[in-house]
Amino acid sequence: MKRNLFITFEGPEGAGKTTILTKIVERLEQLKIDIMATREPGGIEIAEKIREVILNPEHTAMDERTEALLYAAARSQHFFEKVEPAIQKGKLVLCDRFIDSSLAYQGYARGIGIDEVLAINEFAIGKRMPDLTILFDLEPKVGLARIHSHNDREVNRLDVESLSFHEKVREGYQLLVKRYPNRIKVVNADQPIDKVVEDVWHLLSETLEESK
Amino acid sequence: MKRNLFITFEGPEGAGKTTILTKIVERLEQLKIDIMATREPGGIEIAEKIREVILNPEHTAMDERTEALLYAAARSQHFFEKVEPAIQKGKLVLCDRFIDSSLAYQGYARGIGIDEVLAINEFAIGKRMPDLTILFDLEPKVGLARIHSHNDREVNRLDVESLSFHEKVREGYQLLVKRYPNRIKVVNADQPIDKVVEDVWHLLSETLEESK
Repeated sequence: MKRNLFITFEGPEGAGKTTILTKIVERLEQLKIDIMATREPGGIEIAEKIREVILNPEHTAMDERTEALLYAAARSQHFFEKVEPAIQKGKLVLCDRFIDSSLAYQGYARGIGIDEVLAINEFAIGKRMPDLTILFDLEPKVGLARIHSHNDREVNRLDVESLSFHEKVREGYQLLVKRYPNRIKVVNADQPIDKVVEDVWHLLSETLEESK
Repeated sequence: MKRNLFITFEGPEGAGKTTILTKIVERLEQLKIDIMATREPGGIEIAEKIREVILNPEHTAMDERTEALLYAAARSQHFFEKVEPAIQKGKLVLCDRFIDSSLAYQGYARGIGIDEVLAINEFAIGKRMPDLTILFDLEPKVGLARIHSHNDREVNRLDVESLSFHEKVREGYQLLVKRYPNRIKVVNADQPIDKVVEDVWHLLSETLEESK
């Protein structure tokens, strides 16, 4: 079945996005829906190289605007080289994090401004916003506790930010829900995993029904 | 003498910008004016790394918006790490190419749009436009002939673009002169080099006088 829709998953680390995305992909495949699951930089060579510049621990003096522009540059390349062609082929594309991550983390939590970060991202991808964005909402302290209890999980740069930073990220996401009430739907991620999967599936089914 | 001004040199390759900049620097030093001459990426490590991504010949599939965002990212880092601190210290900063290159080459000649490229560059550097921009104007075919007659000069990616591309770049610069008549001053670069130096010196002196 062809369903050229673009759906993104958003929320803090520790919210279970990746685990749940895997389970949702399995269900969609059982229904023979033609899908592509991805996440930035998504194996796109130019985008991977840009990400190396962003994440290089030697680059401690990186200006926050430079960082925001680099994320937008990597997004543009990943979108036009991988996401857009898949949508054009009729695939349902699921992307783990997209524009709202930049708006919440850099626009709001880092204080650059949501509108400013939106502007450079609209330059990057045009007005191609997702058809549906599922926001995994979670108390920051619950998410951080989950991360620290998983010894096998690599702790990344953002995980070690202060609790107050993660609280600002959550506030940023909540502002985005108010700005885009039709696009962004919230799921309570502080529930047993199977219940979260059901809630996500419910939202996804509604969008699939509407697109028939 | 402290003169915290920010002055940029613009124009096509083959117009003699670099040669003339060297001569202007010598004259300013003789007057004991505290100056810094630079060009992007200016030895700034993060900006150099970004430039490597842009210029990597393996990256043939680079989206033009990705490229524009990368130039803006490198500009932001070079500006805040090197240019701005020098201006703050009271230096006169001379920069070989800056925002107008992106507006003329990518905004106009590549067709992304001057306003669109201006927006991401304003994100990168704020409203910190140069105090004076000297545009070296030259018939594209004259500039290209000069480049090809210098066997010792490395021919870069832009040099091999078609004549019509370079004509569009010139048109782009001319639109910028109309948009910023107080900031951008045109010098006829199709004259003997000493005459061009004199013309540049005249414009520079006016700005130095005004800033006293």
